[in-house]
Order: sequence, then structure tokens, then C-alpha cells
Amino acid sequence: MAELKNDRYLRALLKQPVDRTPVWMMRQAGRYLPEYKATRAEAGDFMSLCKNQDLACEVTLQPLRRYDLDAAILFSDILTVPDAMGLGLYFETGEGPRFQRPTDTIDAIKKLCVPDPEDELGYVMRAVSTIRRELKGEVPLIGFSGSPWTLATYMVEGGSSKTFEKIKKMAYEEPATLHMLLDKLADSVILYLNAQVANGAQSLMIFDSWGGALSHHAYREFSLRYMQKIVDGLTREAEGRTVPVTLFTKGGGLWLEAMAETGCDALGLDWTVDIGDARRRVGHKVALQGNMDPSVLYASPARIRQEVEQILASYGEGTGHVFNLGHGIHQHVNPEHAGAFINSVNELSVKYHK
Amino acid sequence: MAELKNDRYLRALLKQPVDRTPVWMMRQAGRYLPEYKATRAEAGDFMSLCKNQDLACEVTLQPLRRYDLDAAILFSDILTVPDAMGLGLYFETGEGPRFQRPTDTIDAIKKLCVPDPEDELGYVMRAVSTIRRELKGEVPLIGFSGSPWTLATYMVEGGSSKTFEKIKKMAYEEPATLHMLLDKLADSVILYLNAQVANGAQSLMIFDSWGGALSHHAYREFSLRYMQKIVDGLTREAEGRTVPVTLFTKGGGLWLEAMAETGCDALGLDWTVDIGDARRRVGHKVALQGNMDPSVLYASPARIRQEVEQILASYGEGTGHVFNLGHGIHQHVNPEHAGAFINSVNELSVKYHK
Repeated sequence: MAELKNDRYLRALLKQPVDRTPVWMMRQAGRYLPEYKATRAEAGDFMSLCKNQDLACEVTLQPLRRYDLDAAILFSDILTVPDAMGLGLYFETGEGPRFQRPTDTIDAIKKLCVPDPEDELGYVMRAVSTIRRELKGEVPLIGFSGSPWTLATYMVEGGSSKTFEKIKKMAYEEPATLHMLLDKLADSVILYLNAQVANGAQSLMIFDSWGGALSHHAYREFSLRYMQKIVDGLTREAEGRTVPVTLFTKGGGLWLEAMAETGCDALGLDWTVDIGDARRRVGHKVALQGNMDPSVLYASPARIRQEVEQILASYGEGTGHVFNLGHGIHQHVNPEHAGAFINSVNELSVKYHK
Repeated sequence: MAELKNDRYLRALLKQPVDRTPVWMMRQAGRYLPEYKATRAEAGDFMSLCKNQDLACEVTLQPLRRYDLDAAILFSDILTVPDAMGLGLYFETGEGPRFQRPTDTIDAIKKLCVPDPEDELGYVMRAVSTIRRELKGEVPLIGFSGSPWTLATYMVEGGSSKTFEKIKKMAYEEPATLHMLLDKLADSVILYLNAQVANGAQSLMIFDSWGGALSHHAYREFSLRYMQKIVDGLTREAEGRTVPVTLFTKGGGLWLEAMAETGCDALGLDWTVDIGDARRRVGHKVALQGNMDPSVLYASPARIRQEVEQILASYGEGTGHVFNLGHGIHQHVNPEHAGAFINSVNELSVKYHK
């Protein structure tokens, strides 16, 4: 493997000194980029793009050619694991992801098998190793998975949901059934993420997109508990370096203390939290990633720069901050505005690392 | 006016002693009740129901006939004010509310007039006075409005939104334009709510459904600031009693301290906050309303009872708690489960008020 030339991202996650605040963007390989749309059109549909290692590598690298980013993230979907369990993932235009065979009964859940990451998920591993090779050590590669709770919401509901009627009914009426599902998912995610590391991922992130839909207590029981299990089961070192783990619960700003207790290295923040407050609450334990509202990218470069400065100032001096958006970049953002965002972080953050 | 027989709800909001924790449900007059669906079918569409004072009164009273509730809430829509400003509110099946004439330019905003509550909104006032009369003093009547920010999201986007692209672009690019809109809305809401009090409302609630979509700083600038203006402008006494004011920002659990500073009497909580934590943070200043996840009503009566007990125990002894759901009751809930919820609060809360 080529030696890593830029390790700012990994160092900041471990709270080691850096020369400036590292930056990347969630969903940085995405529809706001015309070159992404072209490659996706070539692939056909979204899953064909994920399953073609060369095209998945191509879209992963596209934002790095445009912008001075400090990390690459594997191009894949959060729902690969349930798909590999046999649920039949498909995408309906304008409807988001759906499953042909939802898993909303105890019998269906009992039948689920933990997928072999090198077999049913082999296409992801081939993408990881291809991307890692093609990165040529420029920046580290982030591997990722959806959280068990988040995966389970799609599996039980059959797709996206506003009120999570079926899975919440299961949580309150048949908790043992849901725990069986979540436990299988946690086991699957551990194998999946460890295989990503074995194939070249240098950092891991767990996306808990829907943990914020739970109550204070239900979050601990149905989401955090299984992210804890994953953190405990992950390979934390590879190629002689620590593999940092970041947990991100969208809408989880109230629960940062509990998340930091899991032993993860960093927490992702959405934009509802003031990052300075978050640092005071948990910054002695974990690094923080975030947290500009992606909608700020609709504004002018000057306004974007102002917002970046505000977030940097709120975090304050020293390491432990990875700049990012508070959620994935929106598809209608002007790519030049994304560039203004990244340049602003790169320029303005130097003074916080003297 | 008939003398008020049950003032538990008003007393708890003012942190005066009560014999048990008062309870009501957001959207208690709603589609989960067959009698509501029958009346709505009679009215035709949703706005015709709102505009017919006798039918609006009928659906307001329906849940009180079924359940031992401690408050009634005016049956109306949160978007009556922008509709009265001339935007042309309509409802598309499965699409939620929409406006025929969105207000997304400075010229459109400049032309907006503050509606006269007794004229353009006279139908709401007639509903308030009819309901108040027909309540015959059984329980107090809650009046309400959407918050300026929440109203503005629908006005600028033209309807519901997931990412609030247009209004956030306005917030970051043309803040003065948005402030002009929010200021007109705050003035309108003050007149609207004061007129509701003049017509018989005994308590007021401001629903900030979309404040939680904002960043920490943007929430203060674009949502809270205008709720503050409203709190400052409201009639706080009528018929020799205090008219308590409750602010509810869904997803605002991180910002309770700032909300409590407005001088309101109570805060509504969604289910992501532990109510005991909220009490420790702000309970010396304000009463708290909430906060069971409405999805718990999908579970069995025994499980509902358990959840009620947990929330009561978390709040602890003493007054200052109005039990409610953390959001409106869902349409597919079994009305018997709503009854189990209300009975559980009534029975289990007595021991916290010795």
C-alpha cells in the first residue's frame, strides 16, 4: 500500500495535533456533481453503480479531483447489509429505497442469516480495495455502515417512513423480536466493517439516520445498545495505525454524553447542536465532526465563509475537530459553493492550530 | 360565562398545586375518531370544517365526550393566518397543506397585510366563542397559532418541505427579507391570539413545528426571536385569571433554556427529551407539557400504562407537569388505546401530588 500522504483526518479524530482542521463532506460523491451524474447514467441504476467496483471507485475519487478534501468515503449504500440478507433492495424514483421482502414478523426475522462480507457483500469489498489502491495514499479511506436501528427501520417498514409505525409497534409490543433483529444486524455490521478494514478502510463511520426518531429511553435500548456492541467488536488497529470510529445519530444532540460513553473515537453532529457546547459536554472524551447546515451551501460564497468562521470559532483552538456538513450535501447545490466551503475551512482554520 | 369546573390544566401551567397531573392530547379532535371522520365528511373538506363554527365546535367536543380530559383545544389549522393574508390555502390529498400563491420574493412580502382577526379570521373567532359557550365551564379552552418561522416555511416553500431549500436560502442570502416576513407574521399572530382570548380562549399555545430544522444560531435569529415578540405582546390576563402561554418547538430539546427565557409559562416537549432532565434544566422557570411518543399508543394498554408511569416517575413529585403526547396523535391509533393512556395518567399521577 502507498504511504499515507495526508493523515490530518485520522490525527484529528484521535485528537493529535494538526496544522489545520481537516474537512470532508457527507455524500461528497453525489448528484450535485455533473461528473457523478454522468457516471451514474453510464452505470444504469444506483445499485449497479455500487456493484461495479471501477465505477464506484470513479465516483469516490471525483470530489477529490475538484476539491482539497482530507478524506475519501467508500461509495456505497447504507442498505447493502439487509440487501445481502435477501430482502431485495430497490429504488423507486422519488420514493427512496424499498425492500421487496420486508422483515416484519418474528418468523421472517428468525430466518435471517448474517451475510458473509466476502461473499454476498464481496462487491463492497472489491470497491474498498479498488478505491484504496487508486487513492495512492493521497487521503485516508472511510468505510461505513448504517446502524442496526436504522437498517431495521427500512427492513420492518419496507422502506422510508415518517412515523415508523410498524417498527415502533414492534419496539413497544414485541421488544424481544426487535432485539433479535437488531442483534443479528449488529453481528452482521461488525463482520462487514471489519472486512472493510481488512480490505483497506482506514476509518469507520456508523450512520444512525433514524435514531433521532426514538424517545430518550428507546434510543438507548434500541439504537445505542447495538452501536455499543459494534464498537466493542470492531478491529481498532490496522497497518500499524488506529482505525478511528465515528458514530453519527442525526437528531441525537441531546444524547452526546451517552454516545461518547461507547468508547468510539468521535461523534458526528448535525447542525442543531452548537459545536462549542458539544465540545464542553463531551470534548474531553471524543473528537467531533460537523456541523454546518448543508442548506448554507445555497447561500453566497461570502456567507458560507462567514458560517464556517462561526463554527470554527465556536469549536475554538486545538485539535479534535473534523469539519463537515451536519448531513449529506443536497443535490441542488452549486459545486462552486461546495468549493467555497472547503476552501474556507482550509484557509480559516489554520489560526486555530498554532 | 359558566364558571370553570376543572382548572387543573391552568393551575399546573402556573405551577400551582393540583390533585393529579392534568392531561390532554395534541390533535385530540382528529382522524383516529370515527365520529370526527363522520363530521368531517359532513363538512366536505378540511377548511370547510374549520370555517363552520358549529361543526368545528362539534369536533372539539367529541374527544371530551369519550375521555376524561382536562382541556379542550380550538379546532382549526395552523395556517389560517397566511390564508387570511391572501395566499390561498388548500389541501392536496396525501400532500399536506399547500398555498396557491407562495410568498417567496421581497415584493410579495412587502405587499402582505396583517389580517384583522375579527374580519378575515372572524370564522376562527366565532368558533372560539361557540366552543367556549358549549364547553359550559367543564374544562378550559386552549387557543393556538403556528409560530412565525413555521408559518413562513409554508408560505415561502408553497407547502411542506423536507429540506426547506427556499426559506433557508432566503435566511442565509436575504435575511432582511425574511425578517420582514417574520415580523409581519409576529404582529399578525399577536392580534390573532389576543382576539382568541377576547373571544374566550383561556390558555394559548404556539406550535413551532419546524424550528427544529434550524441550526442553533438560526433558531434564535429566525424562530425564537419572533416567539419572544409574541410572548411580549400577548394579553396575559382575562376574566380575572392568568392566560398561560406554552411554546412548543418540535425538535427543540437542546434549546429549552433559551425558550424558557422568553417569559412564557410552559414549554411543550417532544419525546426525545427525558422530562426529568428537562425539569432539572428549566423546571424552576416554566411548567412542562409532554411527552410520550405518540407511537406508544400502537402498543397494548398495559404497555401504554408502563410508559405513562415511567414519564410520571421521571418528572417526579409536585406540580408543573401537563401530561400530553410529544406530538399529535396518529390517525391509525385505536381510540381505546387513547382512552387507556388518559386513564393511566389520571390514575397513576395521584401519588405524585400528595
